[in-house]
Amino acid sequence: MDDGIGETPVRCEVARYTEATCLHRRELAPEEALALCDLSSGEGVLWLNVDRVSDPAVVHAVARHFGMHPLLVEDVLHTAQRPKLEAYDNQLYLVVRMLGYDTEAERVTVEQVSLVLGRNWLVLFQENPGDVFDPVRQRFLTPGTRMRSRGADWLLYACLDALVDSHLGVLEQVDDRIEAVEESLFENPERAMFTALHVGRKQIMELRRCIWPLRDAVNALQHDETGLVSPETTLYLRDVYDHTVRLIDIVETSRDTLASMHDLYLTSVSNRLNSVMKVLTIISTLFIPLSFVTGIFGMNFRHMTVLEKGWGYPAALGLMAAMAAAMLAFFKRKGWF
Amino acid sequence: MDDGIGETPVRCEVARYTEATCLHRRELAPEEALALCDLSSGEGVLWLNVDRVSDPAVVHAVARHFGMHPLLVEDVLHTAQRPKLEAYDNQLYLVVRMLGYDTEAERVTVEQVSLVLGRNWLVLFQENPGDVFDPVRQRFLTPGTRMRSRGADWLLYACLDALVDSHLGVLEQVDDRIEAVEESLFENPERAMFTALHVGRKQIMELRRCIWPLRDAVNALQHDETGLVSPETTLYLRDVYDHTVRLIDIVETSRDTLASMHDLYLTSVSNRLNSVMKVLTIISTLFIPLSFVTGIFGMNFRHMTVLEKGWGYPAALGLMAAMAAAMLAFFKRKGWF
Amino acid sequence: MDDGIGETPVRCEVARYTEATCLHRRELAPEEALALCDLSSGEGVLWLNVDRVSDPAVVHAVARHFGMHPLLVEDVLHTAQRPKLEAYDNQLYLVVRMLGYDTEAERVTVEQVSLVLGRNWLVLFQENPGDVFDPVRQRFLTPGTRMRSRGADWLLYACLDALVDSHLGVLEQVDDRIEAVEESLFENPERAMFTALHVGRKQIMELRRCIWPLRDAVNALQHDETGLVSPETTLYLRDVYDHTVRLIDIVETSRDTLASMHDLYLTSVSNRLNSVMKVLTIISTLFIPLSFVTGIFGMNFRHMTVLEKGWGYPAALGLMAAMAAAMLAFFKRKGWF
Amino acid sequence: MDDGIGETPVRCEVARYTEATCLHRRELAPEEALALCDLSSGEGVLWLNVDRVSDPAVVHAVARHFGMHPLLVEDVLHTAQRPKLEAYDNQLYLVVRMLGYDTEAERVTVEQVSLVLGRNWLVLFQENPGDVFDPVRQRFLTPGTRMRSRGADWLLYACLDALVDSHLGVLEQVDDRIEAVEESLFENPERAMFTALHVGRKQIMELRRCIWPLRDAVNALQHDETGLVSPETTLYLRDVYDHTVRLIDIVETSRDTLASMHDLYLTSVSNRLNSVMKVLTIISTLFIPLSFVTGIFGMNFRHMTVLEKGWGYPAALGLMAAMAAAMLAFFKRKGWF
Amino acid sequence: MDDGIGETPVRCEVARYTEATCLHRRELAPEEALALCDLSSGEGVLWLNVDRVSDPAVVHAVARHFGMHPLLVEDVLHTAQRPKLEAYDNQLYLVVRMLGYDTEAERVTVEQVSLVLGRNWLVLFQENPGDVFDPVRQRFLTPGTRMRSRGADWLLYACLDALVDSHLGVLEQVDDRIEAVEESLFENPERAMFTALHVGRKQIMELRRCIWPLRDAVNALQHDETGLVSPETTLYLRDVYDHTVRLIDIVETSRDTLASMHDLYLTSVSNRLNSVMKVLTIISTLFIPLSFVTGIFGMNFRHMTVLEKGWGYPAALGLMAAMAAAMLAFFKRKGWF
Repeated sequence: MDDGIGETPVRCEVARYTEATCLHRRELAPEEALALCDLSSGEGVLWLNVDRVSDPAVVHAVARHFGMHPLLVEDVLHTAQRPKLEAYDNQLYLVVRMLGYDTEAERVTVEQVSLVLGRNWLVLFQENPGDVFDPVRQRFLTPGTRMRSRGADWLLYACLDALVDSHLGVLEQVDDRIEAVEESLFENPERAMFTALHVGRKQIMELRRCIWPLRDAVNALQHDETGLVSPETTLYLRDVYDHTVRLIDIVETSRDTLASMHDLYLTSVSNRLNSVMKVLTIISTLFIPLSFVTGIFGMNFRHMTVLEKGWGYPAALGLMAAMAAAMLAFFKRKGWF
Repeated sequence: MDDGIGETPVRCEVARYTEATCLHRRELAPEEALALCDLSSGEGVLWLNVDRVSDPAVVHAVARHFGMHPLLVEDVLHTAQRPKLEAYDNQLYLVVRMLGYDTEAERVTVEQVSLVLGRNWLVLFQENPGDVFDPVRQRFLTPGTRMRSRGADWLLYACLDALVDSHLGVLEQVDDRIEAVEESLFENPERAMFTALHVGRKQIMELRRCIWPLRDAVNALQHDETGLVSPETTLYLRDVYDHTVRLIDIVETSRDTLASMHDLYLTSVSNRLNSVMKVLTIISTLFIPLSFVTGIFGMNFRHMTVLEKGWGYPAALGLMAAMAAAMLAFFKRKGWF
Repeated sequence: MDDGIGETPVRCEVARYTEATCLHRRELAPEEALALCDLSSGEGVLWLNVDRVSDPAVVHAVARHFGMHPLLVEDVLHTAQRPKLEAYDNQLYLVVRMLGYDTEAERVTVEQVSLVLGRNWLVLFQENPGDVFDPVRQRFLTPGTRMRSRGADWLLYACLDALVDSHLGVLEQVDDRIEAVEESLFENPERAMFTALHVGRKQIMELRRCIWPLRDAVNALQHDETGLVSPETTLYLRDVYDHTVRLIDIVETSRDTLASMHDLYLTSVSNRLNSVMKVLTIISTLFIPLSFVTGIFGMNFRHMTVLEKGWGYPAALGLMAAMAAAMLAFFKRKGWF
Repeated sequence: MDDGIGETPVRCEVARYTEATCLHRRELAPEEALALCDLSSGEGVLWLNVDRVSDPAVVHAVARHFGMHPLLVEDVLHTAQRPKLEAYDNQLYLVVRMLGYDTEAERVTVEQVSLVLGRNWLVLFQENPGDVFDPVRQRFLTPGTRMRSRGADWLLYACLDALVDSHLGVLEQVDDRIEAVEESLFENPERAMFTALHVGRKQIMELRRCIWPLRDAVNALQHDETGLVSPETTLYLRDVYDHTVRLIDIVETSRDTLASMHDLYLTSVSNRLNSVMKVLTIISTLFIPLSFVTGIFGMNFRHMTVLEKGWGYPAALGLMAAMAAAMLAFFKRKGWF
Repeated sequence: MDDGIGETPVRCEVARYTEATCLHRRELAPEEALALCDLSSGEGVLWLNVDRVSDPAVVHAVARHFGMHPLLVEDVLHTAQRPKLEAYDNQLYLVVRMLGYDTEAERVTVEQVSLVLGRNWLVLFQENPGDVFDPVRQRFLTPGTRMRSRGADWLLYACLDALVDSHLGVLEQVDDRIEAVEESLFENPERAMFTALHVGRKQIMELRRCIWPLRDAVNALQHDETGLVSPETTLYLRDVYDHTVRLIDIVETSRDTLASMHDLYLTSVSNRLNSVMKVLTIISTLFIPLSFVTGIFGMNFRHMTVLEKGWGYPAALGLMAAMAAAMLAFFKRKGWF
């Protein structure tokens, strides 16, 4: 995506742990990393994390090493996949999206993460460096955790759990932003606000497109038939599934809230138009008849005896005052004040 | 949720009853309560009610005592679960939401209740003290009731029934509030009313999110396959299920009513604008031409013979009266009065 | 519902017919009626109609006599059930709603009817006296009809058929009312009309809530597995099912029509605002510039030679006439006449 | 439906064909027609077409002759059925609707056609004389066509195909009408147009109610299990099914188009209001301040030296010209020209 | 479709390849092409591409040669089919739509492509010359590609893949167009823009009608039971299926975006009306009262002593300035500047 990143060489991270031991190396060149990934020994769980997919040669090398299917490799390289689970002979391929929130630009960032699960290994391909997997790392680095005594499927579960948790964080930030707009909407509906609604709507639409298929993918993983996912892990995946359902709940609620705010905004605009019109109507209705009266007495007819009388002027002023009072009473009755 | 509550120590309530006997103790410290919960004897039905989940240590102690799954405990502690049923080896875990209505703030309060059903016991975890289970207590305290001769599944049914009944009460209060707004909307559509609609919409959305998954959970309970729920109880659960369907009916109706009221409000706003515009138009259309006439006779041309004549002034007034009459006839024909 | 009715004693109606004989008694006291309901003889079909459920003691007595389930009795007494079918050991319980149309108040009345089918008997519980079952009575009173040679399931079918037919009648009356509003809407859109739309929408919503679950109940009855409904009757129930589908068609069409009328109303309001604005604009645009001209010649400058000339006044009038003509041409071109 | 038609006697049409022979008689009295319908011989395919159902006696006679079920007869006589397929012991009953387009009244006409398929015969009941089955007649009258060598199920398929083709024709006419309105809508949005939209919407709603259940009926026919429809015919029915799906596509598209046109209309109305308001605002904003200036110099104060000066009048005119220019520049900047 | 094309003779393209050899001939007359299509030899994969279906005689000749079903031929000739898959005895018939984007007219072009798959051959019928299959040609012309070693089902997959890829290109162009409109909408909402929205909506509707059934057809192809599609190809079809799901995602997003833009447009119109009204109100409210004051002092009463005084004129001007200042302060407080 970012050309500048393409020039930086790809860095890999390798971890291999058993209940007793744990090897963890970061910032490796791809060749170094693959040298550490001896599949034949088959002891413990192996984790390989490729931090960017900008270099197809690296992806192809990794795929060859782990015996991945060509179609899988194609999907890893084209980073516009929907979240999905695909089963290959003895591998499971899970595509998910890693969300972030750029607080400065006030928008959601999206990155594709590909997870390939083998018998005792898990390979991750990320789009850009930087991720949400630190809780996972901490767990396999700590001796005695449940993760250390489980297989690669548990590692996959832990990654998925971390991803879904980070989704929740992003959603909450978007929700906070929406609520901030909502409050200011009550006080002062500005056009800028409407633009904010429009942008919010697009973001929510994008989040929905990430989260709905994610739920389906997690569900498919729960009912996986390749035997790569153990029944104990399946129980924990049910928990992840529940979280994705909650994500959907939140995103749908935000959508409804935005729709309701949109209505609120339109109503505010209508109300303002109404209040503007009332001011115009009150002023015009008050002064146009009065001006007519002054017009009458401003006519230049020679024979208007009223103009000659001493009481003419105060009488005219009195007439106008009476008219104004009648108008104001009318407005009062209409409830315009 | 409320920090102040966290400081108050957790209180427990224990009941153990058979057809013949019934022990009931309230306001116990957790250790005292657990001491009363001897699972090995296995006689009668045991009920343990933990009145708040603010202290994780207590929850973990209870979970250990009853052999609950770690994932279940996690869900008990994180009180933002959607209503759901989860089956573990020999336990059923049901999360529901207990609704209340704060009449002062005119809003719905929501609290998570976790029910864990074992072979002959039921454990409840509430978020805050205070609940809707008094009818349940009364039934197991009264000798000879059906409950006394049944197992823990019947106790679960009774709790669920009480919860769903309290949902109905809350929904009716929300409905009353909506109807009150509706009536005043017909008479006097104010902006405050619209804000009320907006708030009502959000509340109904929240209630929907409680009630729809509740129905699914009750349905899953009816078709439970762990053998913890007896066929006789299943028949009664069908009744609870019917009630949840009725709740959905009510909540969807409220939603439709709110949508219809929103339209009604917008129409009222339009109509008011229309009536304001009509007043403006009538006044302007009446007096602007008349003022023009006065303007003509107010011009200072030296050679306007009409100004010199004695009949000029009355003729001008007559002309203006005729114009006004014509205008009023026009408005009459347009149906503006 | 109506307190006054609660004081009137409950009246029952009993019928027992075979192919050859028919006993029919109305206005019986509950004890008399039950005395006639000897279930042990088992000959012919027995019909018991309880005309109101205001007295729980009577309902309980009837339930005991026929061996009805406690849950069933509870649903009979709480008259806010949705239409549904419930199967008990050797009984079928069907709740439906009997509709009426109060032509004076122009609104739909709703009453719950509970039908309990046993091996050779059918018990009806109504909410209020008065029903739509006269065609049914006529059929079992007439010797040689198909009903006389069939079992209690056929009697249930006949009652259901009568109910659905009466639904159709009510829907047609509601539809006629909507069409009446529609026609007047084209001619004269008044605010009162909009209120009528709002009320119509609520009524249609209520009817939907009666009819959709009715369809499901009839469908469930068709696929009943208790053996209480014979295959021949099932064939006839398919016909009733078709009628409920037609009811749904009608009610959905009414809903669409109301939505379309709502749009029509709003458009009419917009159009009226537009036409009001045009009148205002034409008058203002015509006379404001003319008034400006009179204003110019009404200024009191000493050195305005045009005021001194004999041709000044006619020239000013000519100028104003030309301006008016230009304006009118402009409006013509805009298509405002 | 039409009383006048009821008085005309019912006419029937009979055809009986084998691969080698074909008998075809029209305008027969019902008794003559039934005399030709010898079911015992069982050779070839028999077609009986009853041109109206106004005389129940005729329908009952035909039903007796062919051994039709009483429920089927009832549905034939009540001509407000939804399209549906019903299987009886050894007969299939298909109800469809025959559409026409009355070009003068610009509206769709609907007529019920009942088709009853037996082992080697097909009976049609129409509501009114006149139909769309001429292509079918031509096929069985022509020796050597596929129809001549097939059974009655193929005849049913041919009738259905002709009906669905005529549906397509009607839909295209409705669509043309909508497009005509759409084009004029772009040019000149009138209120009459909106009424046209409203009427179009009602027609499309009616067509949907004919076509959606038709699809279901054809689908059910494809999966028929009575053995009356041969596998070869089923293949051809798949083709009819595809056509009904296309009909649905067209009708749904029309619906979307109408909704979009409705929005377009409302927008046009708003835009016109906007443009009217701009004219009013420009004129008022231009001349009201100028009139104020003339008003100032029209005041009758004795001591206004500016009125005495020779340069006063040109200066006042200059001031007004400058104000007008400033206003026009302001409008230009606002983009109102 | 285009009459002029009907006159040009139909041209065919034939390819026959095995792993080792490849024959490819273009611009053949139909007879020449069929002469090359020897089905009996059965070696390698045969591809016949008929570049237009304007001449039914050619289509019938091809159909006879390959033994296609009459219904299939009918669908090939009637080029308004929805995308679908149909299985015949030993042939699969797939109808898809080939999209193009006419950048000048800014609209999508649609063409029907029929693909008939036999044991070792694939026949394509296009509506017009020109297609998107060049990547397919390149693959079978290049020795050693996977295609060369696979059967006709792989060729079908490759064609489908090329088609779906081209759909994506077209969708992106439509999307770009929508985004261009969106950006200008923020800056300057014109009526022309709304027309663009309306047209965009119709195009998206048309694309949906192409893409939704395409997904179903690809899905049916994946689960094909004729044995014509090998399991290896099925794996690759899953990839095509994923692409169609992504197409649906994009098209639905565009639809939502258009709906949101429509709202944005309407809001812009409302806001402009509001701002126009504000200008009118400010000007009127400012000057109408001032004009009234000049009117008072323009009256011709003889006894208005204020007119005689030297301070009268400056006092009147001061009064008017004060009134204007008060008005401006009022507008400021209302937030109208």
